[in-house]
Amino acid sequence: MSKKVLIVYAHESPASFNAAAKDAAVAALTAQGCTVEVSDLYAMKFKAAATTEDVTGGVKDAENFCYAKELKLASEEGRLADDIKKEQEKLKEADLVIFQFPMYWASVPAIMKGWMDRVLGSAYAQEKRYSEGIFKDKKAMLSFTTDCPESVYSDTGINGDINVTLWPLQNGILNYCGFQVFAPQIFWDPATGSPESRSSMLEGWRTRLQNLCGEAPVYFAPLDYFDKEKGFLLKPEVKEKYASKECGLTVGIHMGKPLPANSQTKAGV
Amino acid sequence: MSKKVLIVYAHESPASFNAAAKDAAVAALTAQGCTVEVSDLYAMKFKAAATTEDVTGGVKDAENFCYAKELKLASEEGRLADDIKKEQEKLKEADLVIFQFPMYWASVPAIMKGWMDRVLGSAYAQEKRYSEGIFKDKKAMLSFTTDCPESVYSDTGINGDINVTLWPLQNGILNYCGFQVFAPQIFWDPATGSPESRSSMLEGWRTRLQNLCGEAPVYFAPLDYFDKEKGFLLKPEVKEKYASKECGLTVGIHMGKPLPANSQTKAGV
Repeated sequence: MSKKVLIVYAHESPASFNAAAKDAAVAALTAQGCTVEVSDLYAMKFKAAATTEDVTGGVKDAENFCYAKELKLASEEGRLADDIKKEQEKLKEADLVIFQFPMYWASVPAIMKGWMDRVLGSAYAQEKRYSEGIFKDKKAMLSFTTDCPESVYSDTGINGDINVTLWPLQNGILNYCGFQVFAPQIFWDPATGSPESRSSMLEGWRTRLQNLCGEAPVYFAPLDYFDKEKGFLLKPEVKEKYASKECGLTVGIHMGKPLPANSQTKAGV
Repeated sequence: MSKKVLIVYAHESPASFNAAAKDAAVAALTAQGCTVEVSDLYAMKFKAAATTEDVTGGVKDAENFCYAKELKLASEEGRLADDIKKEQEKLKEADLVIFQFPMYWASVPAIMKGWMDRVLGSAYAQEKRYSEGIFKDKKAMLSFTTDCPESVYSDTGINGDINVTLWPLQNGILNYCGFQVFAPQIFWDPATGSPESRSSMLEGWRTRLQNLCGEAPVYFAPLDYFDKEKGFLLKPEVKEKYASKECGLTVGIHMGKPLPANSQTKAGV
């Protein structure tokens, strides 16, 4: 195997656990024969804000300025800002994209949201999406640290079910673009633990990396379950098919039923 | 009534629907006697990335650099960057904070996430949180545009239930800081509609603004429902109390049951 991997990495400190997790991935994947590229967003001083400067040659519709539409046009006409072009070239090459970050406010840090807004922005306005999304032949995954233990992010824990928190990121961004999404690598509260517990977390990550590319992806409902002509709602035959099931289809498309357990954190649930 | 309102606003174009929604709020609230301050993030060229430069006088623990902890320390010692201090002063004065933005990738645009990461960051590491959070005497709300109709964000729609998408923002950020969260103002796909439909949406917003400060907030589980000594899980007596209910407590703290319908989009559900 000689896959190409892009790691989009967002931590300022080279001594951080996130840096160690990124380094572990680079080492393990390189040892397998993968080509690994790292976009170190803080080191690159990556521009986070989505602005009109992301389009060269002037915006097309200033009156009803829509960032994604402008980006799509600019992309088709080769008028994207250079830093976006460079990241899109890395993305085009990649078979797998790993986002490595510390969770900030139940999401990615702003600098990484900026990468998503700007680099993936021209993918948004495409007609192609979800299982027909433009990156449907690629895999992507989140790998992140939290500063609390797993219980806090359970369905009876104070922060609520981590599967709910992951839905907008994994469905709304990655799945929307077509990526097959591997289960996230979650490092629960490494800062509070002992050096041994941190080593053990990294060892678990190294072990997982051995067969990462062979993993099955997280389940999402396929595009053809929805009726394009009727507000992209589930087709009646799909609703009927799942009517007798105990749980909803996915976290977001829950059909008023209990959420399928761990469906955003485990493959194929 | 003479409330102080801070509008954190993120759109580049003064001709946008978001600008019109922001202007409508300024006009309606000012007419009621409120003092309204606007943080126009793009006009301010607000720095989005959370970096070590946000702390003056050097970071305290470079080895295990933790942004929120550094910010908390810097806040206590008056060592925050000037732009953060200014926003925190506006926030301190405000009775109500309105976030006005176009939804980008199922969340706020990166520049607004940057405001949350940097300005609210020093609130994160406090011992005080959720119903005891440091802003518990303040209200906050999201007001945003999407580029799709409401059906797409329903529990049988392709993007999934909007209540799930809102949970990390409304619970993980606003409720965490203690804010009482008003139901969001959602403008469904204004770009596609007619000028009349846009006018009608704005008129609805103006009408709501007349009595906004008198609204009841969205329901979240109070802090004392959770056992601090046992991983911040629901206390046994609370679990028992809700055991026979048909739905979970909230979207995230769903207890393996169906989600309470519209609980993030309507007050007191």
